[in-house]
Amino acid sequence: MLLIKIGGGKQINWDFIAEDIASLINKGEKIIVVHGASAYRDEVAIQMGVPTKTVTSPSGISSVYTDQNAIDIFLMVYAGLINKKIVAVLRKHDINAVGLSGVDGGLWEAQKKGDLYVKDNDKIKLLRGNLTGKVIAVNGDLLTILIEHGYVPVLCPPAITPEYEIVNTDNDLATAFIAEQMKIKKIVSLFEAPGLLADVNKANSVIPVIKKEELENFLNVAKTRMKKKILGAKKSFEMGVEKIFWGDGRIKNPVISAMRGKGTVIK
Amino acid sequence: MLLIKIGGGKQINWDFIAEDIASLINKGEKIIVVHGASAYRDEVAIQMGVPTKTVTSPSGISSVYTDQNAIDIFLMVYAGLINKKIVAVLRKHDINAVGLSGVDGGLWEAQKKGDLYVKDNDKIKLLRGNLTGKVIAVNGDLLTILIEHGYVPVLCPPAITPEYEIVNTDNDLATAFIAEQMKIKKIVSLFEAPGLLADVNKANSVIPVIKKEELENFLNVAKTRMKKKILGAKKSFEMGVEKIFWGDGRIKNPVISAMRGKGTVIK
Repeated sequence: MLLIKIGGGKQINWDFIAEDIASLINKGEKIIVVHGASAYRDEVAIQMGVPTKTVTSPSGISSVYTDQNAIDIFLMVYAGLINKKIVAVLRKHDINAVGLSGVDGGLWEAQKKGDLYVKDNDKIKLLRGNLTGKVIAVNGDLLTILIEHGYVPVLCPPAITPEYEIVNTDNDLATAFIAEQMKIKKIVSLFEAPGLLADVNKANSVIPVIKKEELENFLNVAKTRMKKKILGAKKSFEMGVEKIFWGDGRIKNPVISAMRGKGTVIK
Repeated sequence: MLLIKIGGGKQINWDFIAEDIASLINKGEKIIVVHGASAYRDEVAIQMGVPTKTVTSPSGISSVYTDQNAIDIFLMVYAGLINKKIVAVLRKHDINAVGLSGVDGGLWEAQKKGDLYVKDNDKIKLLRGNLTGKVIAVNGDLLTILIEHGYVPVLCPPAITPEYEIVNTDNDLATAFIAEQMKIKKIVSLFEAPGLLADVNKANSVIPVIKKEELENFLNVAKTRMKKKILGAKKSFEMGVEKIFWGDGRIKNPVISAMRGKGTVIK
């Protein structure tokens, strides 16, 4: 079984991704897709007059501040607009896709994080009303049932808390939990870059191989989004994953190229 | 198996509905929920600066005109915001709900209607770029698999065409197709009125019983939304349904009250 995680950028080419998924399925592979939608979310948030707010943790990791308005827009764009458009593209390529959010069937259960410490200039402040959570459980039964009947689950946050609140959650960490629950050994993660770059301004500076034990060394060179991918990858290895392929979601044959080592391979 | 169709008004009380569904499930009933979200859709459309447009057919039936902007907002509000919020409320009441749109698993396949003749004042005009469709098939397998494994499917439009376009569709007619595919004999349909009213201004003028053969006689007394429910009910009877209960989605025990004949029973 292969887990394919796709970033939420607007340059991601879903037709190319679908072509690869279809050819992998034809070879007997079983696939779960997890996707983001951050660029579209930010756009709709602006159009609705409530732009996405970003906060920085005391340790320097930036993340989205999710209040009730933000969670509503999150639901609309991730679980509605983008999830269903991705399902339609996959179906066009003969993939029997079914879109689900973490709320459906309690697929992603997350513990609410509660109030958040954030760095505001050089001060540490407490921010209340934060609707984000940390995934604590995955409903693997629902995924297994769908996969056994030939469906390809297409998953996105938000998640649901044990108190039935809908909360935003880190997609890379949530992906790690799916991998653990489904005993997945390989993850392909695609985004709008050819891999992890030694120099973010040089597309030809892709770091081809990283040893999983050395992942943390790259936290300093990585920009905020890549920092999260590194932490997500670390968690995935802790949860039994053996190989992660980071690759370019904009090119022809994005999944297969990544698996052939064209991007960054972590093992 | 019971099909419960819930209108898209803001006064609908989902906690009350969930209580009834939970008690029916405890008695061994299997349930499919279909819902609307029109009031929320209209609100978001205004907030996004592209208000919902309504057109009237030559025969006097009004409907929403769905261009690309409208279908995007439709996806956001129906399949994203409202579907997932309903799933969360149902789960809070111990109902193992899974939300799906007509796009997922090709659940609702619809034939695109194409250009639309509309009445503009007294003139008949041709309107192009209309993304609406007529449901032609239902993926009953996906519903059966979920129900057999103890899940409660929570469904909403849009649908998907054989050419993989996402299209708006009439929820009452789509419900009839679900009933046929799943061999459902009873439908409960809840909205923001106590039943079909003989006088729309008098809440105590509920018509208690309608013979299915006489449904069409009520097309004249009914307002636009109820006209669609009448046509949907007619189609449902053609497709094997034996009893339809129209009732109030705002009151305590809305489903059970409707089934006990507190609203309008059509048989």
